[in-house]
Amino acid sequence: MKPDGGNLIGFGSSGPGGDVFKAINPATGERLEPGFASADADDVGRAVQLGVEAAPAWAKLPGAQRNAFLRRIADSLEAKCADLVARARLETGLPEARLKGEVARTAGQLRLYGEAAERGDWLDVRIETAQADRSPLPKPDHRSMLRPLGPVVVFGSSNFPFAYSVAGGDTASAFAAGCPVIVKAHPAHPGTSELVGRLVLHAVRDCGLPEGTFSLLFDAGFSVGQALVRHPGVKAVGFTGSLPGGRALADLAAARPEPIPVYAEMGSINPVFLLPGAVEERTPALIEGLYTSSLAGVGQFCTNPGVIVLQRTPAAERLVRELAARLAATIEGVMLTPGIRNAFVARTTARAEQTGVRVIARGNATSHCSAAPVWFETEARFFVGNHALSEEIFGPSSLVVWCNDRAEMLQVARSLEGSLTATLHAGAAEAPQQGELIELLAAKAGRVILNGYPTGLEVSHAIVHAGPYPATSDGGRSTSVGTRALNRWARLVCYQNFADELLPLELQNANPLGLRRLVNGEWTNGTVQ
Amino acid sequence: MKPDGGNLIGFGSSGPGGDVFKAINPATGERLEPGFASADADDVGRAVQLGVEAAPAWAKLPGAQRNAFLRRIADSLEAKCADLVARARLETGLPEARLKGEVARTAGQLRLYGEAAERGDWLDVRIETAQADRSPLPKPDHRSMLRPLGPVVVFGSSNFPFAYSVAGGDTASAFAAGCPVIVKAHPAHPGTSELVGRLVLHAVRDCGLPEGTFSLLFDAGFSVGQALVRHPGVKAVGFTGSLPGGRALADLAAARPEPIPVYAEMGSINPVFLLPGAVEERTPALIEGLYTSSLAGVGQFCTNPGVIVLQRTPAAERLVRELAARLAATIEGVMLTPGIRNAFVARTTARAEQTGVRVIARGNATSHCSAAPVWFETEARFFVGNHALSEEIFGPSSLVVWCNDRAEMLQVARSLEGSLTATLHAGAAEAPQQGELIELLAAKAGRVILNGYPTGLEVSHAIVHAGPYPATSDGGRSTSVGTRALNRWARLVCYQNFADELLPLELQNANPLGLRRLVNGEWTNGTVQ
Repeated sequence: MKPDGGNLIGFGSSGPGGDVFKAINPATGERLEPGFASADADDVGRAVQLGVEAAPAWAKLPGAQRNAFLRRIADSLEAKCADLVARARLETGLPEARLKGEVARTAGQLRLYGEAAERGDWLDVRIETAQADRSPLPKPDHRSMLRPLGPVVVFGSSNFPFAYSVAGGDTASAFAAGCPVIVKAHPAHPGTSELVGRLVLHAVRDCGLPEGTFSLLFDAGFSVGQALVRHPGVKAVGFTGSLPGGRALADLAAARPEPIPVYAEMGSINPVFLLPGAVEERTPALIEGLYTSSLAGVGQFCTNPGVIVLQRTPAAERLVRELAARLAATIEGVMLTPGIRNAFVARTTARAEQTGVRVIARGNATSHCSAAPVWFETEARFFVGNHALSEEIFGPSSLVVWCNDRAEMLQVARSLEGSLTATLHAGAAEAPQQGELIELLAAKAGRVILNGYPTGLEVSHAIVHAGPYPATSDGGRSTSVGTRALNRWARLVCYQNFADELLPLELQNANPLGLRRLVNGEWTNGTVQ
Repeated sequence: MKPDGGNLIGFGSSGPGGDVFKAINPATGERLEPGFASADADDVGRAVQLGVEAAPAWAKLPGAQRNAFLRRIADSLEAKCADLVARARLETGLPEARLKGEVARTAGQLRLYGEAAERGDWLDVRIETAQADRSPLPKPDHRSMLRPLGPVVVFGSSNFPFAYSVAGGDTASAFAAGCPVIVKAHPAHPGTSELVGRLVLHAVRDCGLPEGTFSLLFDAGFSVGQALVRHPGVKAVGFTGSLPGGRALADLAAARPEPIPVYAEMGSINPVFLLPGAVEERTPALIEGLYTSSLAGVGQFCTNPGVIVLQRTPAAERLVRELAARLAATIEGVMLTPGIRNAFVARTTARAEQTGVRVIARGNATSHCSAAPVWFETEARFFVGNHALSEEIFGPSSLVVWCNDRAEMLQVARSLEGSLTATLHAGAAEAPQQGELIELLAAKAGRVILNGYPTGLEVSHAIVHAGPYPATSDGGRSTSVGTRALNRWARLVCYQNFADELLPLELQNANPLGLRRLVNGEWTNGTVQ
């Protein structure tokens, strides 16, 4: 199983139209074969047109068939795991165990979202039956549910070559919701993208689904992505990446003649608050936990702690000193791309020059595309009101913020921008008094963690991977991880006074799909009398 | 109960700061006392600041208390109905019976959304309990729900002085979701707005709620609305009105440093398709139904049929001829404002000059601010691809589109832009064959009606008042009417590994509010073990 460098447009492929680019092995600097042809405007138009043509069939596809398709993809990802991981290692520099785990997570997501599609709870089916004799006016029969938006564009991410790329969470949830998907591959791992894309296409054929179900386009630059977001046939966009990238796409989509939603998961500093009691009770565990969580994936996760807030006590100073010593001795790690590594160097250099900011740990990174931890400290009075210190630095860098007292800690919490997560470590005695701080953190993040760490994301019904802007472009009203992710790709449709046999199966009296429905105000899995 | 012309800012009032304006009685042209002071920048800042301060208390307010507050408002609307309707008649020219019915609907909405808040289904509570012994990693405890966004701005509409104004559906659903509300009154009915606003403030005091729960601002122009939408303390916007107005607010909100959602319900042409069998079977009923639905509220409802699509048959020609004769003989009706009347005249004049368009009925309107029906016809080949013919004309004007055959009818359906509703009239024998046409209509509207009429909106759990752009700014992903309207004002928050007593009541093991929750994948009203 080797990539050949062509765009996958429905069941066809593009000619070698646009600029050719190659992936780079970040561990060695080596350019990897083959070359990948950037898609051109015709390719974009064809991919979207195929999606538009496939959309009606997909909208009617029963949840059980969507589930079968997603399971098929999951099975083939697992069957081809060795080939996929081998290519991904070359393109990302990520370790084998991590990539194997990510393939497993990706397969798990596909299956979970497929089950959700078949179960159909997410459709929010509601039925109000007619009352012909109601006075003063008869009550009509109304039956409503969520229905798919149509063709969706998904941008592959740099940091999750499987779980948030070609067959990742955005793609899986869009298929589960009934939408054709056009993926714009991340240029850092085009070979991995092509291999996964081919597996998706095999599943499309095996399941007898329409050609326009899926396309995969490459581009070394931005024009393909922009053309996709502007295309009138595209009805929604999923994106995981940088704040400037996500915001640019959201602005583009908002300025269309017909605006469309962009679900962009962007920057997040994931603040961690350490209360004095927690520091007293478990300094060694906190050092271990913060070290591990901050450096996970060489600091290239969406949820690495980027800001650590403490009250200045002797114990807290000791904790930070010991943590800094451990960070400074950390061996460098390979970053995903030279561009990400260069940005890390530039941004840590700039932060070191900010007023009131001091470097507390600087590891030694010498290789081509590697980084070692660069940590900073400052005081709350410098942090509050200095927007630059609230910006995410993607990579192994965090900022310790010292507070003089509890009031300053609350002030820091109030000044935070939106994040995916916010974490509180409290001692046994002080935890019960944290109501105000917990409310502040819940107003700033989509997930609040008590005495734990933000990295390590559970994909489930209850998880939320979202947050107020700038964590996500829609202010945390939806989530990109978990079964609620399906809701992003759908709109509400109500049928009034329809003959039963003309209704979608989900709304018919006999409840042939066995769905849980709100019938005249009561939830039931039963039929309508 | 008489208005005094001051802005209501929390429990205070503004001085006579900005330009003073008066409402106009559209039936007589008379300017109505008192003058209303346009709010200034300080007023806007104070109203939002009060809302920001009230938001944390509102976020924690149990659903039962939100319900009690909404019921209190509903009760006082009903108690003061005569005073409210008397003022609204002067300001809107709408008939007394209609206004009384609208007050009743408004009270009903407040109670329904209050019940939804207390019941708490809408919160979508989900709980996944910890599994400490799971391999390879322990499973954390995750509990998530929807939580309110914070202060919301609601723009009163011109055409529903009660149901979509100060204490209308947007306000009621935002309160039910736990958000403070700042209303920008529609300048056409400031007196009605003030009277209702005072009732809301009484309820705020009676229920012991914070001062910033509610404010009401006046403005003769646009600057107050723009300042509100730009204010960093505002977290979402509700709007019912014209497409240019809604789009301008959506663009403003999208361009903020922190973009916020604008839920704008805008233009809709509400197409009605009449199949040959329906025309054969029930011409008199169709004439009566189309006549009544099109002219309801002098054509100033969001859901009046604006486009009637038929196949050219002798029976269909007879139907249109008879309908046109009845329309031409219709007595003029008072429109809401001189501005709306002038726009109606200008737009019907422009439409008459479009290629392929002919006037089929023109009633006689001579009074100051009145309109009589102006109907047009054209052929499908002129309609398809001419965007100007798809634009809503607010008022008693519709366009008949003649098709040569079924294929042309489908082509018209495919060419439609988004609408709030789409209606199909089919004969008994032809209805079962309409699957393709129904799917096309469901892709273009938030509500599809079989053998009925789009006006007359049932406020319920199942209703959808939404549609693809330009019907609504968010493409129909949410609804402005019905209990699903609450979801617009909330974001997702997940709590990880929290001690039970530190969780919001909604998420605690004992389920003290008796909510329906998804616990480890199963829906239950019970406790968590």
